[in-house]
Amino acid sequence: MALKTRASRDRMLDATEALLRERGLAGAGIQQVVARSRAPIGSVYHFFPGGKTQLVAEALRIHGDKARALFQRILEDRAKPLPERFRTLFRTAASGFDRAGGNKGCAIGAVALDLDASQEALRRLCRDALDGWIASIALELPWSDDAVRRSFAEMVVAGLEGAFILSRTRQSGTPFITVGEWLATMLERLPGKAGRRATGEQRRRHHEIAKGRR
Amino acid sequence: MALKTRASRDRMLDATEALLRERGLAGAGIQQVVARSRAPIGSVYHFFPGGKTQLVAEALRIHGDKARALFQRILEDRAKPLPERFRTLFRTAASGFDRAGGNKGCAIGAVALDLDASQEALRRLCRDALDGWIASIALELPWSDDAVRRSFAEMVVAGLEGAFILSRTRQSGTPFITVGEWLATMLERLPGKAGRRATGEQRRRHHEIAKGRR
Repeated sequence: MALKTRASRDRMLDATEALLRERGLAGAGIQQVVARSRAPIGSVYHFFPGGKTQLVAEALRIHGDKARALFQRILEDRAKPLPERFRTLFRTAASGFDRAGGNKGCAIGAVALDLDASQEALRRLCRDALDGWIASIALELPWSDDAVRRSFAEMVVAGLEGAFILSRTRQSGTPFITVGEWLATMLERLPGKAGRRATGEQRRRHHEIAKGRR
Repeated sequence: MALKTRASRDRMLDATEALLRERGLAGAGIQQVVARSRAPIGSVYHFFPGGKTQLVAEALRIHGDKARALFQRILEDRAKPLPERFRTLFRTAASGFDRAGGNKGCAIGAVALDLDASQEALRRLCRDALDGWIASIALELPWSDDAVRRSFAEMVVAGLEGAFILSRTRQSGTPFITVGEWLATMLERLPGKAGRRATGEQRRRHHEIAKGRR
């Protein structure tokens, strides 16, 4: 019985994640989660006394952690040159998108664009998930300057989130491949490509931007 | 009276656009549009017999056209070097985001991530709006090869859409500035920076990607 209920809890979280990816925050209502997971409605409030907000928060946390683990796994593969690892990351996202039927976005991106002012806890959760991705990606970048590394990683995450939007409108994952290709080209052409240092001018600019960031 | 009703029609469209930018597709219900625009509810169906779908479609079209005109205006300013125009574009987006209170995303991005399978007309409309942006941006790029120009423009639009998501989670427009800075750096460093030609290898890659695109 404990096993069975644990399984329904997991099914509810899976259903919530899928609904968020397909239809955003409004798509993941309790009724829809119950219908999709075939979990008994009573068990929703048993496992998630905070209702929809708690269910969404836990699903987003799981989604964020899974994506972060995937990024790490691909980017840590030091047998490949770094630009190639970025191509692989975006090709993996493209084929995942296509395999899922061309109708699943990023749960975090969708929620971020659907938030109203009352949903401050969810906003922070989205921010922390994206910041976690940025920190993981920044770790693998070649420059000695932390602000430059973080800044490029932020560009990578923006490209990934934007590719989900373009791909949803085309029902095709090719925008991920385009974005990955340009990011890889960028890594190949930037000063210190095998190397360690950004130019003084780049450092100055990215520090200035970092100062404006909270 | 004609003037007055024309004004309520415009107010309803403005309210719809604002609601889409704040809360996505679910935020722009007829009730919310009526409340925000203070238009009489009867006039919604007078002006928009297709109801919410028609209202959203017209608001998205207006939003898409406005953004496209803004991109053109900034990118056509040939007094500035091209990378500088891209910096300006993204700085303008950042300050627009901050001025609007840090809670307005892109209406098209939000709708794209909220669509369900029954909303095929809205999906095509989002795709066409983004494709229009890509075509406008591609026009201003320096390379002779059309696939490379379109592909970079696609990266620009992905960066812009992704920056909205990051900015929403931080309630700060700085992610736009980061993305614009990297795109400008890219334009400065790519082969033929003042110039016309992408390398053979880049051309090959982007043609390959373009073939996979529909």
